Amino acid sequence: MLAARNRAAILISKSLMGTSMSVRTKVLSLDTMNPNVKNIEYAVRGPIVARAAEIEKELKSGQKKPFNEVIKCNIGDCHAMGQPPLTFLRQVTALLADSSLFKSNLYPDDAKQRAARILDDCGGQSVGAYSHACGVSVIREDCAKYIESRDGGVPANSDDIFLSTGASEAVKSILELLSTGKEGRDQVGIMIPIPQYPLYTATISQYNLRAVPYYLNEADNWSLSIKELRRAYEEAAPSCRPRGLVVINPGNPTGQVLRREIIEEVLQFAKEKSLFVLADEVYQHNVYAEGAKFFSFKQVINSMGPKYGKEIELASFMSASKGYMGECGFRGGYCELANIDKDVQAMLYKQLSARLCPSVIGQGLMSVIANPPKPGEPSYESHEREKAKVLGDLAIKARMATETFNRIPGMQCNPVQGAMYAFPSLQLPEKLVDEAKAKGMEPDAFYCTALLEEKGICVVPGSGFGQRPGTYHFRMTILPTVEKLKIVMQAFKEFHEDFINRYK
Amino acid sequence: MLAARNRAAILISKSLMGTSMSVRTKVLSLDTMNPNVKNIEYAVRGPIVARAAEIEKELKSGQKKPFNEVIKCNIGDCHAMGQPPLTFLRQVTALLADSSLFKSNLYPDDAKQRAARILDDCGGQSVGAYSHACGVSVIREDCAKYIESRDGGVPANSDDIFLSTGASEAVKSILELLSTGKEGRDQVGIMIPIPQYPLYTATISQYNLRAVPYYLNEADNWSLSIKELRRAYEEAAPSCRPRGLVVINPGNPTGQVLRREIIEEVLQFAKEKSLFVLADEVYQHNVYAEGAKFFSFKQVINSMGPKYGKEIELASFMSASKGYMGECGFRGGYCELANIDKDVQAMLYKQLSARLCPSVIGQGLMSVIANPPKPGEPSYESHEREKAKVLGDLAIKARMATETFNRIPGMQCNPVQGAMYAFPSLQLPEKLVDEAKAKGMEPDAFYCTALLEEKGICVVPGSGFGQRPGTYHFRMTILPTVEKLKIVMQAFKEFHEDFINRYK
Repeated sequence: MLAARNRAAILISKSLMGTSMSVRTKVLSLDTMNPNVKNIEYAVRGPIVARAAEIEKELKSGQKKPFNEVIKCNIGDCHAMGQPPLTFLRQVTALLADSSLFKSNLYPDDAKQRAARILDDCGGQSVGAYSHACGVSVIREDCAKYIESRDGGVPANSDDIFLSTGASEAVKSILELLSTGKEGRDQVGIMIPIPQYPLYTATISQYNLRAVPYYLNEADNWSLSIKELRRAYEEAAPSCRPRGLVVINPGNPTGQVLRREIIEEVLQFAKEKSLFVLADEVYQHNVYAEGAKFFSFKQVINSMGPKYGKEIELASFMSASKGYMGECGFRGGYCELANIDKDVQAMLYKQLSARLCPSVIGQGLMSVIANPPKPGEPSYESHEREKAKVLGDLAIKARMATETFNRIPGMQCNPVQGAMYAFPSLQLPEKLVDEAKAKGMEPDAFYCTALLEEKGICVVPGSGFGQRPGTYHFRMTILPTVEKLKIVMQAFKEFHEDFINRYK
Repeated sequence: MLAARNRAAILISKSLMGTSMSVRTKVLSLDTMNPNVKNIEYAVRGPIVARAAEIEKELKSGQKKPFNEVIKCNIGDCHAMGQPPLTFLRQVTALLADSSLFKSNLYPDDAKQRAARILDDCGGQSVGAYSHACGVSVIREDCAKYIESRDGGVPANSDDIFLSTGASEAVKSILELLSTGKEGRDQVGIMIPIPQYPLYTATISQYNLRAVPYYLNEADNWSLSIKELRRAYEEAAPSCRPRGLVVINPGNPTGQVLRREIIEEVLQFAKEKSLFVLADEVYQHNVYAEGAKFFSFKQVINSMGPKYGKEIELASFMSASKGYMGECGFRGGYCELANIDKDVQAMLYKQLSARLCPSVIGQGLMSVIANPPKPGEPSYESHEREKAKVLGDLAIKARMATETFNRIPGMQCNPVQGAMYAFPSLQLPEKLVDEAKAKGMEPDAFYCTALLEEKGICVVPGSGFGQRPGTYHFRMTILPTVEKLKIVMQAFKEFHEDFINRYK
């Protein structure tokens, strides 16, 4: 009704003013802009995070709050939470930035050797030159060797690897490739886990794809069940064309690590239904739980014989931003392709060439992650020590978060087996749910907002990742230092009971 | 007919095999992939460039050729062509990469001060932390101050500036925002110059926009005429909705520098037709010709009174890759927005937040370009000297290229007033044109291929940028060193006459 009235008003004003309207309206308004961009949602940096930034400013300006600082547990931003950069990674990047440092005795030989090898393969021996659209050759080779060694010798071909601006760019490129612009019954569907990392729903909106959600099983530690995959597929198939399947392992936001036999079943399902598999494996170094082990989709496919190893179309994503390095700001990452049609791969590489190349110094960082100091090299021991410290602390914090949340009545948290997140569920009283809804808020967003205002802790509501209707969660990173995470845990204990009691 | 037969064959095979087809076809093939990605063309890295890389490999493997090296004049890749990085830029980036360098006495105080200020504004004082999606705050402020000083005091607001991964990413974001996915009469048209930088046609394909080409006037030094803009608009308007206007100044591939009064006329036209203006101003430091001067669209809009200054929607693009710095590999860049609807701007920033942030060290580099050493600072004189050397050499090479091409019979080249490219026209004999067409090649691509095979010089055919039908050109960068450019020029003199004579 309102829309019809608006339309009428526009028609009237147009006819009154003729073709040369004296009131200039914007070329781009919410009504005329790309609707797919409008539909994007990205909770990791949503309104609660914006409010956290405001509160920081208020604190700075001297406003009194019941806390002295905002602790941001909303985003996997390791260094921002106090994790120090690994010395060797930064030595190599400094050498890449300023080659006059080769003459100094500040840096060990293995750092100089890594940097020199990369520069030798850069145009004009400078990281200021564009690289090949898929990345510097020796860096692609480093990634291939890293993958081979990770996967127990399964061959990797550097021609099938392209470097990317973080993993996000590569994920977007592959989803864009799958999109056809068709609507209705012919719209391309992408199967995604729920809860999911919101890059997937954001990109699915952006490229006019259809999300085909499959639920992870919270009661069984966020496991992935083939029965549920099948249900989601069968339910969606009559109304769209499911062609892609996203799996995040280790899980974001859910922190589970997939067992090998589950990956095999997922691949059987992908083969049966002709699905292109997108394996988000950026947390491959982040596995903490006893008995849990990371298996790459590439390795498992290849262990299943040629019907899989030579057939299933796969894109696997890796990033410099996660793991023990946490170098988010360098925007390093790569994608390995398997079994892609050669013509399609050429089209993808052509598309990448129009964006020229990813940051070359970011590629350099990725290369050192793929090719770290080896036993016998001068930096080996200190590098291993720094790496072990980061991963050791993360394991301690994973346990601390799980145990604390499970001791709070009305919260339940599956063990954080891997990645960097706890995703506990909240039992919220009906009165609280009603009040949130009356305010037009998701109940868990209402909870997280109060937590931020009262305790200065910033976490992301589960509704930003997707969850079963009627359930409520939040995602908290385990990235604050051990000391700071203790403060966060204490704040949760105090806040939760108090807040819930107000609505009993 | 063939398509119908194929479809029938697929139907038959499906019905024979039931639901579990034993022959697995690829999920993604040329027929099923995103048709917009398939349609992308990006000549700067097209087939001739791929062949150049092959020839380099052949030379390395010992094959004999009439030349010893491939000289790549196909892409504005300054460092790859021997231009040295500016010392100060790299000192600051090295300090950003490794903060232990602050303790050394290798670097001057002004470099340390710049790096420290940036790090103070980074999460955890590390360029490994994500920045705000639009960039580090102080870097956005540096860009705003730079713009104000460039534009004679016209105010710039850092909230309207976002840092980007080179300029390309920002151009793509704005074009994506303008796209609506509508087809036919409602498809959004984007006016682009012909010849143009192929990022525009590539992105227009990618986002299913319609290119509305307007021709630059080669006879008048590639000038932009409002009459021609009007012709292009009127011709396109009945069949699509022109909503964006791209201007590249200084011109790529055409090297012209727009006079102020032309920019005013363009803006009057944009206002009259309600067009969103995309000003590609990445070559703003590259102006060589006597009497030529760079005026930004932002400055000119603001000098035309509030009807323009407060109304015309503008996105202006800048890059760390061009100018005197040529730091392509760092992927630094920014975009300044003016008069954008606030809700639309919020949607754009939301979209940017899903890609997290541009390379923070690339942002740092952009910040030093915006905030170079000032008089009195220790690095001022050496920095100015290095900058003047690069720009002075480019000016020499711009003249050398123009003069040489104009002395070759059958070639004509407008003066390279700015940017980094010569775009001479070629008079090609009819027999040559026919032979090229018989081989399924554009005649200028045929010419450039022969030049590459016989002389090892890699340039891009004019057909990759667009040109008036029946005219032929190529784009050559003026980036080889002065000594090397002399070799290139000599090769052209020898090749052109000889090659043309074969077809007379």
